[in-house]
Amino acid sequence: MTSPPPSGPGRPGSQTALRRRNRQTVVHALLANGPATQAELARQTGLSNATVSNIVKELAQEGLAVTEPTTSSGRRALSVRLQGTRAVAAGFDVGRRHLRVVLATVGYEVLAEDAIALPIGHSAEDGLDAAAAMLDKLVDKAGIERRAVIGAGVGLPGPIERERGTVLDGAILPAWIGTNVPKAFGERLGLEVLVDNDANLGAMAEIAWGERQDATELIFVKVGTGIGAGLVIGGKLHYGALGTAGEIGHTTVDPQGPFCRCGNRGCLETLASTSTMIESLAPSTTGPVSTADIVRRGLEGDSATLRVIDDAGFVLGRVMASLANFVNPQVIVVGGPLAALGDAFLDPIRRGLVRHAVPVVGETTQIVVSSLGDRAEALGAASLVLQHAGLNSSLRSLLDDKAVDGLTARHV
Amino acid sequence: MTSPPPSGPGRPGSQTALRRRNRQTVVHALLANGPATQAELARQTGLSNATVSNIVKELAQEGLAVTEPTTSSGRRALSVRLQGTRAVAAGFDVGRRHLRVVLATVGYEVLAEDAIALPIGHSAEDGLDAAAAMLDKLVDKAGIERRAVIGAGVGLPGPIERERGTVLDGAILPAWIGTNVPKAFGERLGLEVLVDNDANLGAMAEIAWGERQDATELIFVKVGTGIGAGLVIGGKLHYGALGTAGEIGHTTVDPQGPFCRCGNRGCLETLASTSTMIESLAPSTTGPVSTADIVRRGLEGDSATLRVIDDAGFVLGRVMASLANFVNPQVIVVGGPLAALGDAFLDPIRRGLVRHAVPVVGETTQIVVSSLGDRAEALGAASLVLQHAGLNSSLRSLLDDKAVDGLTARHV
Repeated sequence: MTSPPPSGPGRPGSQTALRRRNRQTVVHALLANGPATQAELARQTGLSNATVSNIVKELAQEGLAVTEPTTSSGRRALSVRLQGTRAVAAGFDVGRRHLRVVLATVGYEVLAEDAIALPIGHSAEDGLDAAAAMLDKLVDKAGIERRAVIGAGVGLPGPIERERGTVLDGAILPAWIGTNVPKAFGERLGLEVLVDNDANLGAMAEIAWGERQDATELIFVKVGTGIGAGLVIGGKLHYGALGTAGEIGHTTVDPQGPFCRCGNRGCLETLASTSTMIESLAPSTTGPVSTADIVRRGLEGDSATLRVIDDAGFVLGRVMASLANFVNPQVIVVGGPLAALGDAFLDPIRRGLVRHAVPVVGETTQIVVSSLGDRAEALGAASLVLQHAGLNSSLRSLLDDKAVDGLTARHV
Repeated sequence: MTSPPPSGPGRPGSQTALRRRNRQTVVHALLANGPATQAELARQTGLSNATVSNIVKELAQEGLAVTEPTTSSGRRALSVRLQGTRAVAAGFDVGRRHLRVVLATVGYEVLAEDAIALPIGHSAEDGLDAAAAMLDKLVDKAGIERRAVIGAGVGLPGPIERERGTVLDGAILPAWIGTNVPKAFGERLGLEVLVDNDANLGAMAEIAWGERQDATELIFVKVGTGIGAGLVIGGKLHYGALGTAGEIGHTTVDPQGPFCRCGNRGCLETLASTSTMIESLAPSTTGPVSTADIVRRGLEGDSATLRVIDDAGFVLGRVMASLANFVNPQVIVVGGPLAALGDAFLDPIRRGLVRHAVPVVGETTQIVVSSLGDRAEALGAASLVLQHAGLNSSLRSLLDDKAVDGLTARHV
């Protein structure tokens, strides 16, 4: 890089090249982080407000982006989103008992979505069948062409080996352990597939789709059959050395507590998962209880249910206190089916957090339920595809060539 | 940024400006991260090997840097360090019972260092007196001019409010709580002062001074009168929303355990700090025991001492397991006075970690003692000054003007 930069139109260092690069930077930010105000775009990209404003005007004139008035921190602002419905990302959330799929545009608009129940202990093959069938159904429902789907993101409840996308031991989908998810889904769907832990995708969704676009230090805690966390640090998802960061479900709470499927004792999951709560309710109820029952009865004020929610919430708060002491987030977002309980679940969590965190952390860490409900993980899976697309220069150059509506799978 | 870049020598975008910027980038990396091989510099800066090599040759010819043969990953390599002894950083490590000071060059060479005991409960004023006296002594000892000291870094055992550098409630130096450290030290020493938590500085020292320059995910755990951690994430120190990240000493281990100075019960510090270990040894010894006694007796194989070390290590390992599950580091470095015990301390820590971490994390997380011993925090404090100096453009331009030996405090 000690040779002089070549000059002339389109060459590196020229005015044309600079404008093209700035434009790509803005498009990349909109793909990766979702719709944003011009001020947020300036912050995300490091470009000046004037440069962002010019680029947005250009994109809007070409029909690649739309702007709409909004308010940000009480001020009037212009929200910008990419436009186009023929380049679509598919997001899959595979749970122990459910499958949810969303189809989302480059502008972070949901074209179609659906969820079905899966049998407990379903094989990876069963999951793939259900996923392929639902994708076809949603493509029809959205009225788009199949080839408009540029890729798929898959969220799974368990640790994922980052290098190959393999489900690691410890996942609560035992039949999936060892599956190379990008390969298996990729071959079945004919798409490039990216995979991540469901709690990581929930965290990603909170900053890309949810109400926390301004958060740079955020933890998403998913409470379900398993318990996991996704950590946003410095505005980015934190994976750690192997990609397993956020494993909070197997924090030892009581070393002499119940034996856990992981081989340890008294893990958080043995005390606060929905499965444990269902078991705890068995003596006081007739017939089997579902997670939906816990939510309904909790909201109705059933005393046994509230006691179980209270105990689980308090111990969750204790482990969140450790996590908050270690990482010091601005906000902890609680996701998963119990988030529908709202304050009935958050109150004991807050008590557990304040009791066990160092004072300054307990006082300042916000705890909220996800504004995205059950959809967070699937939405995060879709944004994984859009983020990856944004890093791919052939897609960027296509966007620059006004061909946003002509993308196909090969460009991911 | 949509106007064309101006051209001509020295203007932004010109060849001269590009070379100057690349050179500044290399100097900044050497100041911030310490001596490095050319390959490491290329990785740190994103510049090509050839560009780095040219810049290093230039710096060496001008006498601003020295190179020496070394081996890196078994290969022969060239290690590069900045040169000059008249621009010196002071690093202060203030503990509950000690003060350590180092004087370090821009090339990360220690010119002089010393440590003294401080009385428990010493006031901030007493600490400042001792610090000022020791700085004068070390300046003499090093044979440098006082004005060559370009700034001071201070490490303290407690949470630090990032914005102003104030010691927060929870510090194990109660008399220091509320002190604005940069102001108090700055006025006393006549220097610009930067402050950080001691465990954060230990973590910084491991990657800048120690054997872990290649680590991007590292946790430094300091075990002393207090217990704290510094988290390196993505190669950078992680501070969190308020700057208090790494607070592991008050992790609840036993909710019905001993009352802690923080107002909670059964915190890690009540079970594994050196103060607790000293108390636990009281019934089996005559006369007071010091931390140095624990190290000596542990190495001699005294059974009561080994039992106390074992219990503390195992519970430390349990909390490190939570931390490793959450953050998934490559390595955990154990610092503080007990690190001198080596395997006698690491073995129970490893058992606690493997017992309580999820299997893949327990198997892959390395646990080692700091190669820097008691000096880690003071060395980290000195590198804090050098890093900050590297961010300061007037210093960078001075280095470019071959005036590295003429720096004074006003340039920090």
